[in-house]
Amino acid sequence: MRNQRGEMENSYDSMGSKSKDVSLKDLSIRLAEFAQVRGWDEYHSPRNLLLALVGEVGELSEIFQWKGEVGKGLPNWSADEKEHLEDELSDVLLYLVRLADVCGLDLGQAALTKIIKNARKYPVVVMNQKSKSTYN
Amino acid sequence: MRNQRGEMENSYDSMGSKSKDVSLKDLSIRLAEFAQVRGWDEYHSPRNLLLALVGEVGELSEIFQWKGEVGKGLPNWSADEKEHLEDELSDVLLYLVRLADVCGLDLGQAALTKIIKNARKYPVVVMNQKSKSTYN
Amino acid sequence: MRNQRGEMENSYDSMGSKSKDVSLKDLSIRLAEFAQVRGWDEYHSPRNLLLALVGEVGELSEIFQWKGEVGKGLPNWSADEKEHLEDELSDVLLYLVRLADVCGLDLGQAALTKIIKNARKYPVVVMNQKSKSTYN
Amino acid sequence: MRNQRGEMENSYDSMGSKSKDVSLKDLSIRLAEFAQVRGWDEYHSPRNLLLALVGEVGELSEIFQWKGEVGKGLPNWSADEKEHLEDELSDVLLYLVRLADVCGLDLGQAALTKIIKNARKYPVVVMNQKSKSTYN
Repeated sequence: MRNQRGEMENSYDSMGSKSKDVSLKDLSIRLAEFAQVRGWDEYHSPRNLLLALVGEVGELSEIFQWKGEVGKGLPNWSADEKEHLEDELSDVLLYLVRLADVCGLDLGQAALTKIIKNARKYPVVVMNQKSKSTYN
Repeated sequence: MRNQRGEMENSYDSMGSKSKDVSLKDLSIRLAEFAQVRGWDEYHSPRNLLLALVGEVGELSEIFQWKGEVGKGLPNWSADEKEHLEDELSDVLLYLVRLADVCGLDLGQAALTKIIKNARKYPVVVMNQKSKSTYN
Repeated sequence: MRNQRGEMENSYDSMGSKSKDVSLKDLSIRLAEFAQVRGWDEYHSPRNLLLALVGEVGELSEIFQWKGEVGKGLPNWSADEKEHLEDELSDVLLYLVRLADVCGLDLGQAALTKIIKNARKYPVVVMNQKSKSTYN
Repeated sequence: MRNQRGEMENSYDSMGSKSKDVSLKDLSIRLAEFAQVRGWDEYHSPRNLLLALVGEVGELSEIFQWKGEVGKGLPNWSADEKEHLEDELSDVLLYLVRLADVCGLDLGQAALTKIIKNARKYPVVVMNQKSKSTYN
C-alpha cells in the first residue's frame, strides 16, 4: 500500500496539477486509507457519511446564497473565493466517494452506466441534420 | 470527438465494467458534450446546477430515510435497491462534476489538494509505532 | 391563554382558511397524532426524520432548479406551480416540526429566541435617524 | 407596527417561554420587519433564500452526522448540544418562513392543507375498531 501510495504521489508531483487525470478509484483508495490510519472506520457508516455529505452541500450552497445569478466561469470572483469553492466542491465529492465505497458500490462505473441511461431517457433531437449526436 | 468517444466506449465495452478506472476528466468531457448536443448549455448556469445537485441529494437521502442505521456493504438490500442507490449517487456526482466544469474548476485536482489539506488538519496520531502513516 | 387559543381556533373554523393564524404547537400536536394513529411512531426517529427533511428540501429545490433567477411574488408562475411549491414548502415544515417534537424541543419558542439572538448579532445601523428600529 | 411588535414582545416576556403559542404569521411578520430595517430586502430573493435554507439544513445535519442512531428525546445530549440543535432547527424554520413570504404564499395555511392531503393519501387502517382516527 505504501509503495502504491508513494508512486501515486510521485506521478502527481512530477506531472503537475492541471494534467493529472484523477480517477474515482484513486480517490476511493486514498480515502479508505485516510480513514483507516486515523481509526475513523467505525464512524464511517453509510448514514453518518450521508449526513456529512449533506453538511458539505450546505457549505457549498452558502458560497452561492447571497450572490444572485452567477455567470459561467465565475466572473469577478477572487482567487480566494474560487479556492473556497474548490474546497467545498471537493468535500462533497470526497464524502460521496467514501459513501459509495462503504456501501460496496463502484461509483465510477455507476456514473458511466447512469450517463448511458440518461442518454436513452433524453435522446438527442436531430433537426435537419443527418447525425448530430454520437449517442444515437 | 466521435472517434474519441467511440474508442472510450469500445474500451469500456471490452474491458468490462468493474475494472474501468473512470476519471473525473472523462466524466466532465462526456457531460459537457451531453449538454451541448441537447441544447442544454443555457440552462447549465452554476446556481441552476447547484439546485439540481441539491435535488439529487434529496433523492439520495430518501433511499436511506426510513431504514434506521444501515450497515456497511448494505446487508439485506436487494439488487434493485442497490441499483437505485447507484443511480442516485451517480446523479449527485454528475451534477457536481458539471457544476465544477461550468465554474471553470478542475474538480479532480481540487479533490487531491483537499485530501492533502485534510491530512495536515488531521494528522495521524502514532502510538508506540515508528511510522504508521505516510501522511506525516 | 386558553381563551386566546380557543378564539383562534374558532375564527379558523368559521372564517375559513386565509385568516387562520396557524401555530407551530398546533402543527406539532396534529403531526404527533397523525403518526400515532398510523403506527408510524417507530419510524419517526430523529435521524430518519432528518433524512426525510433533506429529501423534501431536494423536492423544493427541484421546483427552482432550471428557472434562473425568480422574482418576488413568483411572477408568471401558474396556479399549479404555486400549489406545488406550497406543498413542498409544507413538507419541509412538517418534517421540521416533527423532528423538533421527537427531540423534545419547542420549535416556536426556539425560533423566537433565535430571532432575538440574530437581532443582537446583526444590530440595525441607524443613520441620521433618531430611532429606526424597534430591535435596539 | 411598533405597537403591535411591542405588545407581542410584552406578552412573550410576561407569559414565559414554554407556554407561548408561536404562529407562523407572527414569525413571518417579524422576519419581514427584521429584513426591512436592515436593508436586506434586496438580498431576499426566492433562490437566495432557498440556498440559505439549504445551508442551514447542512448545519442541522452536521449536528447529527457522527452520532449514529439518536434516540427520541436526545438521551445523553448536553444542554449546550440541545441549544445548538434548537438554533439550527430555528434557522431552517426562519428561512423557510421568509422564503414562503417573499413568494407571496401563506405557509401556515399551506401546511394545514398538506396535512389534509396527506391524511387522504395515507388513510388510517382501522382494525377491529369502530373509529380509531379523527382524520377519517
